Amino acid sequence: MDNCAMTADFKTWAEAAPELVAVAAGRQPADLVIRGGKLVNVQSREVLDGWQVAVKGGRFAYVGPDASHCIGADTEVVEAEGRYLVPGLCDGHMHIESGMLTPAEFARAVTPHGTTVMFTDPHEIANVLGLEGVRLMHDEALLQPVSIFTQMPSCAPSAPGLETTGFEISPEDVAEAMAWPGIIGLGEMMNFPGVSAGDPKMLAEIAATQRAGKTVGGHYASPDLGPAFHAYVAGGPADDHEGTGEADAIMRVRQGMRSMMRLGSAWYDVESQITAVTEKGLDPRNFILCTDDCHSGTLVQDGHMNRVVRHAIACGCEPLIALQMATVNTATHFGLERELGSIAPGRRADVILTSDLKALPIEKVWAKGVLVAENGKVSVDFPHLDWPEHARKTVNLGKELAAADFVITAPEGKNTVRARVIGVVENQAPTKALVEDLPVVDGVAEGADGTCQIALVERHRGTGGVTNGFVKGFGYEGRMAMASTVAHDSHHMIVVGTDREMMARAANRLGEVGGGVTVWRDGEELALVELPIAGLMSDSPASEVAQKAAAMVQAMEACGCTLNNAYMQHSLLALVVIPELRISDLGLVDVTKFELTELFEEGTT
Amino acid sequence: MDNCAMTADFKTWAEAAPELVAVAAGRQPADLVIRGGKLVNVQSREVLDGWQVAVKGGRFAYVGPDASHCIGADTEVVEAEGRYLVPGLCDGHMHIESGMLTPAEFARAVTPHGTTVMFTDPHEIANVLGLEGVRLMHDEALLQPVSIFTQMPSCAPSAPGLETTGFEISPEDVAEAMAWPGIIGLGEMMNFPGVSAGDPKMLAEIAATQRAGKTVGGHYASPDLGPAFHAYVAGGPADDHEGTGEADAIMRVRQGMRSMMRLGSAWYDVESQITAVTEKGLDPRNFILCTDDCHSGTLVQDGHMNRVVRHAIACGCEPLIALQMATVNTATHFGLERELGSIAPGRRADVILTSDLKALPIEKVWAKGVLVAENGKVSVDFPHLDWPEHARKTVNLGKELAAADFVITAPEGKNTVRARVIGVVENQAPTKALVEDLPVVDGVAEGADGTCQIALVERHRGTGGVTNGFVKGFGYEGRMAMASTVAHDSHHMIVVGTDREMMARAANRLGEVGGGVTVWRDGEELALVELPIAGLMSDSPASEVAQKAAAMVQAMEACGCTLNNAYMQHSLLALVVIPELRISDLGLVDVTKFELTELFEEGTT
Repeated sequence: MDNCAMTADFKTWAEAAPELVAVAAGRQPADLVIRGGKLVNVQSREVLDGWQVAVKGGRFAYVGPDASHCIGADTEVVEAEGRYLVPGLCDGHMHIESGMLTPAEFARAVTPHGTTVMFTDPHEIANVLGLEGVRLMHDEALLQPVSIFTQMPSCAPSAPGLETTGFEISPEDVAEAMAWPGIIGLGEMMNFPGVSAGDPKMLAEIAATQRAGKTVGGHYASPDLGPAFHAYVAGGPADDHEGTGEADAIMRVRQGMRSMMRLGSAWYDVESQITAVTEKGLDPRNFILCTDDCHSGTLVQDGHMNRVVRHAIACGCEPLIALQMATVNTATHFGLERELGSIAPGRRADVILTSDLKALPIEKVWAKGVLVAENGKVSVDFPHLDWPEHARKTVNLGKELAAADFVITAPEGKNTVRARVIGVVENQAPTKALVEDLPVVDGVAEGADGTCQIALVERHRGTGGVTNGFVKGFGYEGRMAMASTVAHDSHHMIVVGTDREMMARAANRLGEVGGGVTVWRDGEELALVELPIAGLMSDSPASEVAQKAAAMVQAMEACGCTLNNAYMQHSLLALVVIPELRISDLGLVDVTKFELTELFEEGTT
Repeated sequence: MDNCAMTADFKTWAEAAPELVAVAAGRQPADLVIRGGKLVNVQSREVLDGWQVAVKGGRFAYVGPDASHCIGADTEVVEAEGRYLVPGLCDGHMHIESGMLTPAEFARAVTPHGTTVMFTDPHEIANVLGLEGVRLMHDEALLQPVSIFTQMPSCAPSAPGLETTGFEISPEDVAEAMAWPGIIGLGEMMNFPGVSAGDPKMLAEIAATQRAGKTVGGHYASPDLGPAFHAYVAGGPADDHEGTGEADAIMRVRQGMRSMMRLGSAWYDVESQITAVTEKGLDPRNFILCTDDCHSGTLVQDGHMNRVVRHAIACGCEPLIALQMATVNTATHFGLERELGSIAPGRRADVILTSDLKALPIEKVWAKGVLVAENGKVSVDFPHLDWPEHARKTVNLGKELAAADFVITAPEGKNTVRARVIGVVENQAPTKALVEDLPVVDGVAEGADGTCQIALVERHRGTGGVTNGFVKGFGYEGRMAMASTVAHDSHHMIVVGTDREMMARAANRLGEVGGGVTVWRDGEELALVELPIAGLMSDSPASEVAQKAAAMVQAMEACGCTLNNAYMQHSLLALVVIPELRISDLGLVDVTKFELTELFEEGTT
């Protein structure tokens, strides 16, 4: 993988070999020597006491018992003082947009936690800006001092026919992207019913990836491990991070897939699956740790891949095996085992100093031979892309919205309506398809008894379209509204509110600032998280975004919502691939049948 | 690795996916179902009782507990009757020419032993026929029902300046070959001093391979594990099969290389190294089994990769780990883990039925879904390439040789000479540089006391060149000679004899038959192994070649030679990279100094 995520100023192993050989032989001095530590060798699965490393041009030149012959007058010598040298941690699958941060700011946030390699699927921006959006994420990723590889998004729209995205991704787009320097494979193939059914478009995307010799990411979000699952595997996905129990993990590995186990801000799938290794004794080589989705608050307060490794160890996994699951296993999966993921000659010099293999404090971090973080603080720049203006102007409402746009007219002459209502369930991604009898006032259907309004506001093409419906479970009270342009997966705008005037003002406010999340009550804005880039990301530091996001959660609480992870629930209400009832720009969607449905049921009187 | 060793009639996974998916889903019948067995899963390292496989178009479509939904009217159903299903065995590094057989006949010989995948370096033919010879081997390899991947030879000549090969291999040749469909990487980089010294030509060959995303084979034949070794590793070789002791194996794996452990006809490097896993407890994933060199007799009588796996188990390795070392570990090393080496959907349906995991009897063998062998007999054709006529006419002596060509004239007026004599040591590849006082008769130096003559006869360019010298240790008596065109690595002709007339007749005989090995005594030919293709290989079946080779060994014994592996000693006497004294077309070579030396020492009286 000579051409992956390479930037002009960083030599490939092939290009660097003459000087790596010269340093290892002692004919040329190293840039950096680290000595006096204990080296964690993830290839042999050993701790090698006293082993030293010599680095040249950002790659390991020498790894062995004595690097003194590599030290010259200008060589920087770091004393490890008995601490462990661990390879930089790899996140096997994740979405940068989930942090509400640009690649640069995400990288800046996670580097002090020891994450030096990420495999990221910019699926969200693909829905908003299409292939160009993916390219922008990819290009900013390649500017970073750490290694960020891009998985080409596979499924935009996620549910063709049930929603309209800003742009669509085609097999031709996939084939084109495979030639970009930072593309490592295909992003999670979420259309698992399509693959199992032999959908030619999905198989064409997989084939384009396989022909490029790259890795096909999987996403099989179903407990059915029968023929449908086997058909999905036969289609080509090489990994899966949607397993939630031990049987899922075991079955995936038995099929020659890699089981990715995730600990995200709201995903807790490590503890329930790692027993495949710790108790059932399966060969650990095909297990990989990842985060999938992390909020900025998690990054600021809890950590990133260090949090996942720590957790795996706390679940009973041997520390060296847990570290393999976040280093060499990941690298091997993506065909990068000779490029990164271990402390060995020729590889990128990504290394962490830590004084404890279980608690895993991240004391120093080098990426490509450069000290990038120390004791929780970054020590280098994380360059921003010069994002084009239209990437900051993606909220196109087509008009100023008014309370009237959120009016739900009842059928002529009715006094009550029987409505299909989206029921939010705490701590669960699936919703319930409720049926409620709601009052009609002056010909308008109104929320009541905890049921309030939800609207999906079209924001990609300026159609002025608003799909109105009802939602229950947030607990909102008073005259309030909350709007968000993070609205998986097509990322229009979701507005939830008890008051149509507030709903209009919240929506217009996001049109004004270019997207984000806002909470309104009694004519005032209680909180705003600006996400100007594609309406999904901020280019401010994670700490600022985390602070604003925390204020947003407080504002939701002030409006009466005490659900755990209520913001995530809000942002998933248009995710028309997860049962039971969702909303899209095309209408209300019955996700048990994958079809559009009517707001009012028969029985409306 | 979508394009590796693919032939027109065998679909890639990408091409086959629609029907693999359909079979796994139960919408289309499989070609073959195997049921009622115990499946060895090398990914999870488990035996799965009752697991079944369904095959379509030569690839696994379904692997799981119940394939009954994949069975149609025309599906062949095989009852495993409680036996184990094991992935076809992979030979991680080997030279087909060592069997004195063409790729087709070699494949025919090893298939009944369960070897379905080989990674072969046609280094010998490269010395005789250059890039064209490599291409011919590669092309015949691709005709076979089993999978034979070609490693592009890296070092012809092995010792530039000390010998003249038929052709040379350049970095440009390497770059060209990387685009051939069956090329999997670079063959063993034997010029390890060159790599450690930063030789631009060697690094250019490695770089061409890395740029193509392929695997660089290593060959570090030295016990020195200091800076010279580390410099070699920094140069890029990804594996090494030259380790002989546990420390070698451990050090290679700690450097991020794969340790290939070989059991060939004359190599016994498994027992001494596998303790790195069985006793030291290193992660076994980076250990691979291979044969390197097997004679036809070994193939006929003892086996091939089944012999190596059995031996590894006998050395204390757990059977499932030993099998991983000959299947998934090898596949992963060459970037083929999604193409072969395990019983999993999408992979080539290479599978063995065996009733015992330790003794490993090979009862049935399928390759790419076709039953290729059963109870020791092949059941399909192994097609021969139509070798061009000039590949069968490579012994070009330029003239009829006569006894006079082997006369060693003593310095004017001397009665005895003090000569440098090549000393053969039983069971060792290195020779001794002896010094012997030899008689002079009529101005001609003569062998005496067990010292006889050796000649290196030029055979590539018809120069008529003969380099004469002395050799000791074979024990030859009477009027005899033995000649061979297998003469590592440049493969001229080595003639050893006690009689110049016999030497001339033996040499001329090989010129007549196009190469091989012949033994003469008292004017008669005692034995002949014809190797008409490049003077290295026969396109007869292995059993015939083995029989002739056995007769050749008997003829050597009849001439007084009782050394173990004497023929190998003969064929290695021109291998000018192994100490201490060798012969080449350029003269006598002091391999302790890597320079040409004189036949007669000072002190000649």
